[in-house]
Amino acid sequence: MEDLIINNSRMVYAVIMAGGVGTRFWPKSRKSNPKQFLNLFGETSMIQQTAERLQGFVEEKQVVVVTNKDYVSLVEKQLPSIEPMNIIGEPVARNTAPCIASAAALLNKKDPESVMIVLPADHRIGSPNEFKRVLETAVETAKTQESLVTIGIKPNRPETGYGYIHRTSDVKIKNLNHPVYRVQEFTEKPDQETAQEFFESGDYLWNSGIFIWKTSTILDAFKEHLPEIFIEAEKLKKSDFKTEDVRRFYEACPPISIDYGIMEKAEKVHVIPGDFDWNDVGSWTAVHELSDKESEENSTDKGKAIYVNSSGNYISTNGKKLVAFAGVDNVALVETDDAILVVNLDQAQDVKEIVEKLKENEETKKYL
Amino acid sequence: MEDLIINNSRMVYAVIMAGGVGTRFWPKSRKSNPKQFLNLFGETSMIQQTAERLQGFVEEKQVVVVTNKDYVSLVEKQLPSIEPMNIIGEPVARNTAPCIASAAALLNKKDPESVMIVLPADHRIGSPNEFKRVLETAVETAKTQESLVTIGIKPNRPETGYGYIHRTSDVKIKNLNHPVYRVQEFTEKPDQETAQEFFESGDYLWNSGIFIWKTSTILDAFKEHLPEIFIEAEKLKKSDFKTEDVRRFYEACPPISIDYGIMEKAEKVHVIPGDFDWNDVGSWTAVHELSDKESEENSTDKGKAIYVNSSGNYISTNGKKLVAFAGVDNVALVETDDAILVVNLDQAQDVKEIVEKLKENEETKKYL
Repeated sequence: MEDLIINNSRMVYAVIMAGGVGTRFWPKSRKSNPKQFLNLFGETSMIQQTAERLQGFVEEKQVVVVTNKDYVSLVEKQLPSIEPMNIIGEPVARNTAPCIASAAALLNKKDPESVMIVLPADHRIGSPNEFKRVLETAVETAKTQESLVTIGIKPNRPETGYGYIHRTSDVKIKNLNHPVYRVQEFTEKPDQETAQEFFESGDYLWNSGIFIWKTSTILDAFKEHLPEIFIEAEKLKKSDFKTEDVRRFYEACPPISIDYGIMEKAEKVHVIPGDFDWNDVGSWTAVHELSDKESEENSTDKGKAIYVNSSGNYISTNGKKLVAFAGVDNVALVETDDAILVVNLDQAQDVKEIVEKLKENEETKKYL
Repeated sequence: MEDLIINNSRMVYAVIMAGGVGTRFWPKSRKSNPKQFLNLFGETSMIQQTAERLQGFVEEKQVVVVTNKDYVSLVEKQLPSIEPMNIIGEPVARNTAPCIASAAALLNKKDPESVMIVLPADHRIGSPNEFKRVLETAVETAKTQESLVTIGIKPNRPETGYGYIHRTSDVKIKNLNHPVYRVQEFTEKPDQETAQEFFESGDYLWNSGIFIWKTSTILDAFKEHLPEIFIEAEKLKKSDFKTEDVRRFYEACPPISIDYGIMEKAEKVHVIPGDFDWNDVGSWTAVHELSDKESEENSTDKGKAIYVNSSGNYISTNGKKLVAFAGVDNVALVETDDAILVVNLDQAQDVKEIVEKLKENEETKKYL
């Protein structure tokens, strides 16, 4: 296994996608400081944990971050080891396909044999060693098969909030750390009944948004399925990747997701089931679930809290005030220097509606 | 009616009992600043509203306040028109009987014909004009009958949290503004079934803790039913009511309530049904009920609040932070400079348990 890592390390790059402007973590997440830069767990941010997780597998100088141009300085501050040239600042949001094409162009120019691992910046992985073992299998597959490889998460519930990947029943590549399947179909978020069928069938995996491929393979796929973006990527590849070059690229690209633009259409797509305690941390509910608990399933992130006849709660403050809960269940209180959120953890998606309300008048826009 | 007020005014005194150290309004109420001194409604405190309510009926210089000695300066600050000599600072809490005896001694010395109206400092009355009309009847009764008079509140629900007064079915004194009944019995807080019977019978009234009597009448009652306190009251009456005199009186008195010590035993007790939108404001639930509501029965006391899919909530902050509720029903959030309470309004009595927990360790005692 050591050998494999050493052999890979020269050509394996990681591309961390950090462009999100997530609103589900208000009041901590703000336009100027979205989820991936927050310390939702412990003393480091989601993007810092994403980078840390790669240590020993991808060299720091081979990590690329694609983010909104407004967050470039945040990335530089939180990940000082990343080469400044490896931070791509998107001037406009164009969804994941252009994001991936720009990183593929950058890396393919450096090394035509390069393999890139595409990772969202804001997921949580509980078993990082198993995660790396799965990535090893994925990299090996991407290199030897020249296919598009994705990691599918083994579902532990009939979740309706994720897309699913229908894999073949039989293993297509053996003798690696993990079985490798072909993808039959990518599916959109299912209704409850369909999700239940998927969950019970055993042949469906959650779409994790983690992809592994040779940069040459994905660029070929762009050429076939998204030629408009491919042409721009070729131009970008010939440029010096200066701000102006990147701006021209993004402004020329249509907004489209890699799933819809390529993965759902490509012929040769492999999926590797991953079982490494993955969570996309989609809401305060997930943060509560993933946090250490006191008695009665209460969880206090920071600050002093007292609970009386209360269970299943989450409290995160700026540490200045004592918080007391009495007779309250399944509620999160999140306090920042200028706001306090109290949200029912059974309907944490309502936080999005709060953010919409804040946009409605001038007086409250400062809280966005 | 005008004549009645003018005739009464010379001899009618009010005694506001303000010794409570209530813990049910934490984090706003603190040992150093209990409920009666809080602005729970609007821009004045409960005790200020109690005094304001008497205007036009009792002259300011004829208002006496009995409170804990630690709150004397708070009373002086909040009620600057009260004569300093009319503020009695209790050195130790001895319940209501000694409190009333000390005020009776003070007023009986000033005027042997004086009538005193005893009022809790922390109740809310929605119809102050009707309240004054009831007091007129009570004063007239106390003067002409030389009886102990109490105001009974017409119940609007089978409440188990109050004591009840069983009145006679027939009116004993007519030709006044209101019917006056004799009291058959004072009862303790009933169980649910008994409360339902009381409520349906029509002959039961809530014990409001509001009493009206001539000072000579109540001192005679002390002589008969609580001679130990009567002897001390006689000594106090002969003194100059200096701090040392008051200290000696309270330290010599046993702790006992006026209800248990006198009202339940006295022969000649009258009750007048009062229907003036009375509330003893026993918890944050009552504050929510009595506050102005926005849509969905939400109520924001101070500060800016946003509600999404939330109803029946109460928010009171120090005005510095935006508070947002999402998917939360029947919850109060109360913020002070050093603490935040989140309490289910269906079990607001749990606040007492929080205060008990705060007492448990040194670190949290500063929040008491």
